[in-house]
Amino acid sequence: MHTMNHRITLAERPVGDIADSCFARDDVPVPTPGPGEVLAEVTWLSIDPTIRGWMAYDTYLPAIEIGAPIRSSGLATVIESNNDAYPVGATVTGLTGWQQYVVFERGFRVLPDGVPPEAALSVFGTTGLTAYFGLLDVGRPVAGETVLVSGAAGATGSVVGQIARIKGCRVVGIAGSAEKCSWLVDELGFDEAINYKTDNVRRSIRAACPDGVDVFFDNVGGDILEAAINNLALRGRVVLCGAISQYNDVAPTPGPKNLSVLIGRRGRMEGFIVLDYLSRAGEAIADLAGWIGDGELSYKTYVVDGLDNAPQALNTLFTGENTGKAMVRL
Amino acid sequence: MHTMNHRITLAERPVGDIADSCFARDDVPVPTPGPGEVLAEVTWLSIDPTIRGWMAYDTYLPAIEIGAPIRSSGLATVIESNNDAYPVGATVTGLTGWQQYVVFERGFRVLPDGVPPEAALSVFGTTGLTAYFGLLDVGRPVAGETVLVSGAAGATGSVVGQIARIKGCRVVGIAGSAEKCSWLVDELGFDEAINYKTDNVRRSIRAACPDGVDVFFDNVGGDILEAAINNLALRGRVVLCGAISQYNDVAPTPGPKNLSVLIGRRGRMEGFIVLDYLSRAGEAIADLAGWIGDGELSYKTYVVDGLDNAPQALNTLFTGENTGKAMVRL
Repeated sequence: MHTMNHRITLAERPVGDIADSCFARDDVPVPTPGPGEVLAEVTWLSIDPTIRGWMAYDTYLPAIEIGAPIRSSGLATVIESNNDAYPVGATVTGLTGWQQYVVFERGFRVLPDGVPPEAALSVFGTTGLTAYFGLLDVGRPVAGETVLVSGAAGATGSVVGQIARIKGCRVVGIAGSAEKCSWLVDELGFDEAINYKTDNVRRSIRAACPDGVDVFFDNVGGDILEAAINNLALRGRVVLCGAISQYNDVAPTPGPKNLSVLIGRRGRMEGFIVLDYLSRAGEAIADLAGWIGDGELSYKTYVVDGLDNAPQALNTLFTGENTGKAMVRL
Repeated sequence: MHTMNHRITLAERPVGDIADSCFARDDVPVPTPGPGEVLAEVTWLSIDPTIRGWMAYDTYLPAIEIGAPIRSSGLATVIESNNDAYPVGATVTGLTGWQQYVVFERGFRVLPDGVPPEAALSVFGTTGLTAYFGLLDVGRPVAGETVLVSGAAGATGSVVGQIARIKGCRVVGIAGSAEKCSWLVDELGFDEAINYKTDNVRRSIRAACPDGVDVFFDNVGGDILEAAINNLALRGRVVLCGAISQYNDVAPTPGPKNLSVLIGRRGRMEGFIVLDYLSRAGEAIADLAGWIGDGELSYKTYVVDGLDNAPQALNTLFTGENTGKAMVRL
């Protein structure tokens, strides 16, 4: 164990693309756990689009303070414990932050033995739970319905599409390259994939979803959301999971021009946050593990090595460079 | 009974404001009812914003054909019947169209005796049912919650706000004149009213709804919708009933820039059409009649005389000239 805790902290709030100048690096003494507290060594970090929001302003959580470590979920190993809930040697998951050591008292979960870190941070982590609860609890697809997913090659979208397929739906994905589209159809069993960089999205959705879109799981926002609304089936549902196309925008961009389509089609659009579902994580993980065991569900990870490379890993989410769940191995 | 049927028909589809040139007037022979059919004399017409949509393009119903009478709901008296469901002398309500006589076989309801025509077309008609089911079934307000209504002095909005008050909610209305705002607060028991023509709507909503908006019942769309979303409470619901601010727009206008607020606030936005609820009209009318009897609910009508004045009555909906439910007495 080191005596110093290396950290990546917030130096300034991002405006537009996330610049290097947003981050600072420092070394502070490893904190000593007080009564009831736990000291753990961080081993993996989950790199998620929501981190950009936390860096910029108050969202469903308060903005990260300037000078504090970048907020991030991750995995850690307990090395000193004054808390029976977290025994020494246990692998725990929670908001570790971008640092080598974390002290906490609650809010972390102990991982069962035998779960690989890559799975714990992806398909069994917030992205997998987001896909599971967002699709099934908010979107409520029924066998035979058509499910459209944007950001379909991403960590969440790729799981959404596979769960929809498992539930007997027709599944169409939207992604940003021919390779990603092939992966969706050939490897993950999507019925069709649309390349939003080369295809006319509105027309392609209509062609791929001739009876309309019953559930649109949206990770992207913007023009793709508008195109999907235009193709919404009667009583269609739009699951608002994210709007990554807009997170780096400097000024708010106009929303869909066609919201009144929701009136005539009796459409529902609903946002959600996976944190609300963490108490039900067990049921999701049981289903997801079963599907993985049956060979029905697969997932891809994008692993970057070294804490100091976390900022670069975060930026790949916005450039579309990564396929699968981004994470950092310390 | 006349031998000729005077009608107002669709001459051209509206672009922007509804011009006189959209309408033609003709006189055709009074139709003869066939087997199973009924001939009825039209007595009142309901003048509703949705008529503009029907004139312009396919909506939840196909567009009105050029040369056909303007589609409209109304009241009529049965004068010749080949159908036991509709006895001679009965007052019926249904899609009469803008004409003196209508022939139909089904799709009309017989009104119980003793309901004044003004009530049948307003609080017991589609606007009252829209308010009732839109608020209670889609918005699902809970006592103690804050309900915000746009177009609050309109036929639907004024009933929405009163039902919300009856259900124990704090009620804030948005309307377009000081007189309308006074009416809402002083006569209908709204807690506060915002004049969107003179007040800063976003700031006024924040001031009037310090704990946020739990249910926003939107008749208007556009900037007011955006302002309401910004003030949505956690798990707030937006009931999309109409978007009258945009019906006369020539080109689609950009939507709210802040839809991603729905993610963090776990917000739900949902459209509906009252036609889906007509089979449950009885339960709504029983409640509404009870509240009227108790002096808890009042309604206002805006009556225009003469079939030939129906186009002018329709235009008052868009200028805000009317207060209360617009209708034409033949």
